[in-house]
Amino acid sequence: MELCVLFGGASFEHEISVVSAIALKEVLKDSIKHFIFLNEEHEFYLIDKENMHSEYFANFKEKKLAPLQLCKKGLFKSAFFGNKKVELPLVINLVHGNDGEDGKLASLLDFYHIAFIGPRIESSVLSYNKYLTKLYAESVGVNVLPYVVLNENNAYKNALEIILKKFAFPFIIKPINAGSSLGVSVVREEKELAYALDCAFEYSKEVLVEPFISGVKEYNLAGCKIKQASEQDFYFSYIEEPSKQDFLDFEQKYLDFSRTKAPKAQISSSLEEGLKKAFRDLYGDLFEGALIRCDFFEIDNKIYLNEINPIPGSLANYLFEDFKKVLKCLAQSLPKPPKVQVKNSYLLQIQKNK
Amino acid sequence: MELCVLFGGASFEHEISVVSAIALKEVLKDSIKHFIFLNEEHEFYLIDKENMHSEYFANFKEKKLAPLQLCKKGLFKSAFFGNKKVELPLVINLVHGNDGEDGKLASLLDFYHIAFIGPRIESSVLSYNKYLTKLYAESVGVNVLPYVVLNENNAYKNALEIILKKFAFPFIIKPINAGSSLGVSVVREEKELAYALDCAFEYSKEVLVEPFISGVKEYNLAGCKIKQASEQDFYFSYIEEPSKQDFLDFEQKYLDFSRTKAPKAQISSSLEEGLKKAFRDLYGDLFEGALIRCDFFEIDNKIYLNEINPIPGSLANYLFEDFKKVLKCLAQSLPKPPKVQVKNSYLLQIQKNK
Repeated sequence: MELCVLFGGASFEHEISVVSAIALKEVLKDSIKHFIFLNEEHEFYLIDKENMHSEYFANFKEKKLAPLQLCKKGLFKSAFFGNKKVELPLVINLVHGNDGEDGKLASLLDFYHIAFIGPRIESSVLSYNKYLTKLYAESVGVNVLPYVVLNENNAYKNALEIILKKFAFPFIIKPINAGSSLGVSVVREEKELAYALDCAFEYSKEVLVEPFISGVKEYNLAGCKIKQASEQDFYFSYIEEPSKQDFLDFEQKYLDFSRTKAPKAQISSSLEEGLKKAFRDLYGDLFEGALIRCDFFEIDNKIYLNEINPIPGSLANYLFEDFKKVLKCLAQSLPKPPKVQVKNSYLLQIQKNK
Repeated sequence: MELCVLFGGASFEHEISVVSAIALKEVLKDSIKHFIFLNEEHEFYLIDKENMHSEYFANFKEKKLAPLQLCKKGLFKSAFFGNKKVELPLVINLVHGNDGEDGKLASLLDFYHIAFIGPRIESSVLSYNKYLTKLYAESVGVNVLPYVVLNENNAYKNALEIILKKFAFPFIIKPINAGSSLGVSVVREEKELAYALDCAFEYSKEVLVEPFISGVKEYNLAGCKIKQASEQDFYFSYIEEPSKQDFLDFEQKYLDFSRTKAPKAQISSSLEEGLKKAFRDLYGDLFEGALIRCDFFEIDNKIYLNEINPIPGSLANYLFEDFKKVLKCLAQSLPKPPKVQVKNSYLLQIQKNK
């Protein structure tokens, strides 16, 4: 199987994506034919394998290369004598956050008929915006914590009043659409609120507030829907119980990003089944084509969705026994875009009536 | 104000978009600098004004032109000696249905930093999928009719049982994401069901079923949020009471598409205020940048959303007294994409730690 990895993006998680891609290089090795870097200015570059290290990108060395343009089924380079086209094998969309998870790259890849692993437009939008994720999860019968959405207009006037109507201190404040714990703070008393709001509003125009439950049990499960024979089935990772710290901020989460194995959760089979059922219900048809990670809480024997990561860091490869196999199964299970044929029968009828 | 009109698309409503663009040509005349046609194969073409008539497109005459590529702030043409770039003024996204209303073109225009009038990615996704529209409308406190969603797996086995648990005959069946009444049927008795499902599933993988209320009052209202001085305000069309036929199918709706004036609804000021309030609540921040039309029902003095058209036919220009003015105000009120600056501080830190 030949793959290419698309990473970077004009995103607050740009660097995470670079590290994610470098980690995948180690895991997938020769299966990766091309590394495609998307820089802040939305230029695409083909990166040689030997340049896939953090120093190269930290110093913007790609700028010495010629940028490429996306086109039907590939990329092309403008050259003085005609354009040169690079046909792309299956793309792994590994751009975290803006561009990659908000639906933009899904749209571009779809538009240019480039096959890819990653969330499609609808699933991107529903998982990128934490408020929409809540609506969606509730609609498929998966529990979520209570929440309040604040925007810049109401947040600084009466945020506390609005929040305390719903739940008490402590609470957690998150930008409505940033990942990797960027802009997230726990607020334990009133005087911490204004700064926490400032931090979150740096990343998005709206913020989500939820109760913060200390010591809550957390479980992460990754997977995807695959077609086996004529059956549809799920390919699951093992279930991870992440670190027990209060919550992991950006640096904590990613300075140990290149870890290879995560702790396996020791849980009952009924809890495991419950987590898998919630995953299946969330994944539905919507996330077809993507390898996602769902992060859950368990509170009083009830399962709650925390969030859906439609492009988890280095595709959560460390949670799978055989990561190449899951990619191979997924590659054979990608959704086909609906076939639309333009008929022009109505335009011809207008002509006839004239 | 200079504009360009982007129309066509690989959409079941391709022809509607062609007619929509021709209608706008008459209304906006010299304000339109370019007509950009997107064909079924996702090729862009610049169309001369004198070729903007149905016969040209019915016979695929654009194929004689050279296709263009989208690029930063414009389009470019590959030429033997270097590429030629056309910078684009403000684009009106007039591609109805697939490509235009599903978020794909919004993504492309956003990605290439091309300013446009039309729904952004999130609002596209929420209005294109009628089920998500229901969830969204309910979440902002706007009533919707009860509904059932069927997919191809459950539809043919026990559709009737599922539907009758929620409401009785007659009901209306719609593809979950096609516009312009494509694939829509009213089902009055059991024997009509299978054919109605077939019609709807031709357009999408899921279908929505709602009770069909004969003779229901319908009201359409178009508008957009604009910035005036430092205030945010709404620019509304007058309220239209569409034709009283049971429901308008595709041909009925569009064979009189080039109408210039629609009947103005004779309604109480409280109903008018109610419709405007529902419109404001639905539009929110989400639809900023778009001129949308919301179609409502009134049943027992309660207002229900029927659907949101984020790119109504010829932008519902016939509902505005001064259409050029609304476009001008909207052009000055477009949302700015969030500014994301890539810092690479984490990548540099990794380097330091090595």
